[in-house]
Amino acid sequence: MEIAPELLKAKKMVIDLSADYRLDSANEYKKYYGVEHKDAESLKKSVYGLPELYREEIKKAKLIANPGCYPTAAILALAPVVSLFSKVVNSIIIDAKSGVSGAGRKATLAFNFCEVNENFKAYKVLNHQHLPEMNLYLSRIANGPLNMHFVPHLLPINRGILETIYVQLNGEVGIHEIRQAYERFYKTEPFVRVLPKNAQPELKNVSHTNFCDIAVEMKEEQNLLIITAAIDNLMKGAAGQAVQNMNLMCGFEETEALI
Amino acid sequence: MEIAPELLKAKKMVIDLSADYRLDSANEYKKYYGVEHKDAESLKKSVYGLPELYREEIKKAKLIANPGCYPTAAILALAPVVSLFSKVVNSIIIDAKSGVSGAGRKATLAFNFCEVNENFKAYKVLNHQHLPEMNLYLSRIANGPLNMHFVPHLLPINRGILETIYVQLNGEVGIHEIRQAYERFYKTEPFVRVLPKNAQPELKNVSHTNFCDIAVEMKEEQNLLIITAAIDNLMKGAAGQAVQNMNLMCGFEETEALI
Amino acid sequence: MEIAPELLKAKKMVIDLSADYRLDSANEYKKYYGVEHKDAESLKKSVYGLPELYREEIKKAKLIANPGCYPTAAILALAPVVSLFSKVVNSIIIDAKSGVSGAGRKATLAFNFCEVNENFKAYKVLNHQHLPEMNLYLSRIANGPLNMHFVPHLLPINRGILETIYVQLNGEVGIHEIRQAYERFYKTEPFVRVLPKNAQPELKNVSHTNFCDIAVEMKEEQNLLIITAAIDNLMKGAAGQAVQNMNLMCGFEETEALI
Amino acid sequence: MEIAPELLKAKKMVIDLSADYRLDSANEYKKYYGVEHKDAESLKKSVYGLPELYREEIKKAKLIANPGCYPTAAILALAPVVSLFSKVVNSIIIDAKSGVSGAGRKATLAFNFCEVNENFKAYKVLNHQHLPEMNLYLSRIANGPLNMHFVPHLLPINRGILETIYVQLNGEVGIHEIRQAYERFYKTEPFVRVLPKNAQPELKNVSHTNFCDIAVEMKEEQNLLIITAAIDNLMKGAAGQAVQNMNLMCGFEETEALI
Repeated sequence: MEIAPELLKAKKMVIDLSADYRLDSANEYKKYYGVEHKDAESLKKSVYGLPELYREEIKKAKLIANPGCYPTAAILALAPVVSLFSKVVNSIIIDAKSGVSGAGRKATLAFNFCEVNENFKAYKVLNHQHLPEMNLYLSRIANGPLNMHFVPHLLPINRGILETIYVQLNGEVGIHEIRQAYERFYKTEPFVRVLPKNAQPELKNVSHTNFCDIAVEMKEEQNLLIITAAIDNLMKGAAGQAVQNMNLMCGFEETEALI
Repeated sequence: MEIAPELLKAKKMVIDLSADYRLDSANEYKKYYGVEHKDAESLKKSVYGLPELYREEIKKAKLIANPGCYPTAAILALAPVVSLFSKVVNSIIIDAKSGVSGAGRKATLAFNFCEVNENFKAYKVLNHQHLPEMNLYLSRIANGPLNMHFVPHLLPINRGILETIYVQLNGEVGIHEIRQAYERFYKTEPFVRVLPKNAQPELKNVSHTNFCDIAVEMKEEQNLLIITAAIDNLMKGAAGQAVQNMNLMCGFEETEALI
Repeated sequence: MEIAPELLKAKKMVIDLSADYRLDSANEYKKYYGVEHKDAESLKKSVYGLPELYREEIKKAKLIANPGCYPTAAILALAPVVSLFSKVVNSIIIDAKSGVSGAGRKATLAFNFCEVNENFKAYKVLNHQHLPEMNLYLSRIANGPLNMHFVPHLLPINRGILETIYVQLNGEVGIHEIRQAYERFYKTEPFVRVLPKNAQPELKNVSHTNFCDIAVEMKEEQNLLIITAAIDNLMKGAAGQAVQNMNLMCGFEETEALI
Repeated sequence: MEIAPELLKAKKMVIDLSADYRLDSANEYKKYYGVEHKDAESLKKSVYGLPELYREEIKKAKLIANPGCYPTAAILALAPVVSLFSKVVNSIIIDAKSGVSGAGRKATLAFNFCEVNENFKAYKVLNHQHLPEMNLYLSRIANGPLNMHFVPHLLPINRGILETIYVQLNGEVGIHEIRQAYERFYKTEPFVRVLPKNAQPELKNVSHTNFCDIAVEMKEEQNLLIITAAIDNLMKGAAGQAVQNMNLMCGFEETEALI
C-alpha cells in the first residue's frame, strides 16, 4: 500500500504479495495487522488472486491481492463443499501445519535452527491473521456466515502447508456424492488435483510445484467430513500463484513457466 | 502374549509394551491387529499402565499393559474434561502428529529418509489401531460412549507426539473453569504439567523426558475447547512410562531414574 | 549393460546413468561392483558424459556413461589444478559429504529416517566404488598417476554433495595464480561457477539446479590448496547432466530445460 | 574474565566455559577473539579441563578452562599419535563438521532454520578461532610445532561434532601398531571409546552422552592415517565435560551424573 497507488497511477499492473489488499475493510485490516490502512479506497477495486474462483476478474484486473498461503489451501479445500452444500455445513475446524518459510526470512530466535528442528508446536491458536481472509472469501462462496476455527502449527521443514480440515455436517450427504462434487468442481483446473479414494496429499508431491492436492474422507455415521489439502507455500501459496495471475492478466498461457 | 503367560506362571511381573493386553476384548483385538489373541483370559487381569489414572491398581498388578503412545497423550489430555464435564461433551476430534520412531524400527521404503524428510502427511485416517484403545479408557472415565475421531500424521522428526484436540461442548463451561479443573486434576502428578494461559506445549520441552505438557484454550462463543498435549513417544509414550510402572510395582520412588 | 547393447543395435542413442560404462576395464569393474561385466567391448566406445571435459566427443557419441555424483564434483573441482599444475600436485584428499538420495531409493534399515536424521558418519572409508572412476579421468588429465584418497560421509539431507578437497602441492604456486586458472578454465561454461575470494559453496545455492559451485583457498606457507565444490547429486550429479548430454547429442541448446 | 577474578578472590572454584582461559598468551587471545584480555595473569594459573590429559592438575585446580568443542574432539583424536609417534607426523588436516548448537543460541539470519536445513557448507576456512587452542595443546604433547590445518563445516542438525582427520606420516608405522596404541592410551578412560576395526563413529551413538568415539584407519601404501572422532558438542564438548571437571575438583566419582 506504500507503492501500489503510484504504480497504478502510472498505469502499471500490480500483483501484491502482501496482505494489504486481501481484506475488504480497513478496520479489519487494522485489527489483524496492527497498522492503519493507507490506501483504503483501492480495497474495493482489488481482485483476490485465486484463479480457481476469480479467473475472469483477474484477467481484467489492474490490482491483484495475491492470497495468503494458509487461505489458498483452505479456500481451495473448502470451496466445493461450502458452495454446493452450504446448508448442511455446521462447523469448520482447520488444523494447519506449515513449513518455516511461511514466516518469512527473519533473524529471530524463534526461527533459529535449533528452536525449530526436531520440534513442533501450535501457535497463534484461534487468532492468526489469516482467519479473517479465509472467512471473508468462504462466507461469500457460502452466501452466509460460517462457524470456522483455525489452528496453525510450525513444521520443521523449509516449505509446504498441509491442512487437515474437519467439517461437521448436520444433514446426510454421502462421501460418494462429496467426492464427485470435488472432482467436477476442479475437473478443468490445471493446478488442483483431487486425489482418488484412500490416497492422501503429501507435501513432497507438491513441493516446488504450483499444485494443490486435495483428498476427502468421511465418517458417515457422524456426518464428519475430513478434507486434507497440500500446497507449496512458496509456489501456489505465493510466487507460483503470482505468476499464474500474471499469466492471466497478460494474456499468456495460464500454466506458462509453471509446473 | 507369546511370552507373558509363561512369565506370569513363573511368578514374574510383566510390563508389556506391545498392544496385546490393552483392549478388553479378543474380538476387538483381532479386528484392529489382524491376528487371533492367544491369551484372552489374561485380558481381564491386566492393568492399563497409566499411573495418573490407575496408580493403585498398578501397585498391585502382576501384568501391566503399557499404554500406546497416541492414547497416552490423548487420555491424559482428555481425562479431566471427560470425567468432570462428560454431560456437555458432544464430539472429540484428535488431530495427532508423531515422529517417525512411533512406527518402530523398520526397513521399509515408506520410512526411508528421503520419503519422510521435508515431507508431511496424514495416514490411516479414521482407522488407526489406537482409536479403540483411546475409546475404551475414555468411555470408562466418561461413564458412557463418546463421539471420537482420530487422524494421525507423520512428522519428519525422530521422536515426539503433539495432539491438537477439538472438543465441541454443547453447554456453557468457561475456559477459566476448565483450566482450573485441569490444574486440580494434575496438581500432584509428577509428570503432567498444565501450562499457564497463552503458553503452548512444544515437543522440544518434553523430548527425552517423561513429561506430558498440556494446554487448554477455548472459543467461548462456540463452546469449542482446544486441548494440546505433547509427550516423547519413546518416554512417557513407551519406555519412560514402563519404568514409572515398574517403580510403582516394585515399591520404588515413582520418579526414580526418570526426568 | 543388460539393455544398452540392444538399444545401440537398434541405432538408438544411449545415456546410461548406471556405472556400467564409466570405467575402461572389465576387471576393475568387477573388483568394485562385484559382478562380471556383460558388455566389455562397449567399454572402449562409450564416452564419459562430463561436457566440461568431453563436449566434442559427447556431440558425436552413441553411448554415454553419465558420470557418478561424487566423481562429477571431484573431477570438476580438480581438473584445472591437475591439468595445469600436475607437476606440483603431491597428494589429494577428497573429504566428501552427500545427501541420502545419493544412495538410491532403498528399503534398508541403514536409510530409515531415524538412523540418518540428527546423525552423521563416514562410510566406505578409502574403498568407495567411485574412487577408481575419479582416478581414471583425473589421471588422464594429469597425464600420470595421482596419489588420491576419498572418504565419503552421509549427510542428513535429501540432496546435495559438498566435497572439501585438500591438495598438497610440492612447489610454489600462489593462490592468485590458482584462482585465475580456475576462472579461465571455466570462463565459458554455463554450469560451473568459480566463486570469488572468501565466498564458499553452499548446497542450497545449487539444489534443484545443474550448477557446480567451486571455491579455492590456500595456506600458502605450507602449499596446501583447499578446493570446495557443491552440486545437486540428482541434477549435475545425475539427471541434469544426462539432459545436458542429451542436448549436446541431439544438437539442442546445451542449457535447454536446465537451470 | 569479567567474573572469574572476583570468584577466585572469594575462594570459589571456577569452571569457565568461555574461551577466556584456554590460550596461554593474551596476544594470541586478542588476535583470535578480537578483544583485549582483562585477566592475563590468571592465564598462567588456569588448567585446561581435558581430564584424559590433565586429570591430576584438574583435581587440584581452582580455575578450569573448559575446552572448546572442536578442540576436545581433535585433541582426543590426535593425542595418542602425536605423543607416541610425533617424529613421523608430517601434516595434520582436520575436516570438522558441527551441529548448529555449536554456534550458540543466536538470533541471526545465518542460523535461521531455512538457511541451515537441507544445506551444508564450510566456513571460516583455515582461520577458525579454535585452531590456536588445538595447536597449543597438541604441540605441547608432541613436544614441538605441528603442521596443522582446520576446516569446519555446518551440519543441519542440533548437536554433535564429527571430525575426519588426515595425518600424513613420513615413516612406516602400521595400522595394527597405531590401533593398539590408541586402545592402550584410552584403556582406563570412562568416556573415550576406541572402536574396533571397520566400525566408524556416528553422532547418534554419542548424542546426549559424554562419550568420545574414535576410529583409526590407514592407507598403508601412502602412510596416510585417517582418524574419525565424534562427540556431543553440548556434552563432552561443553557441559558434560564441565561436570566431569567438577566431579574431579570436588572429589566426587568422575562419572557421577554422566552417561
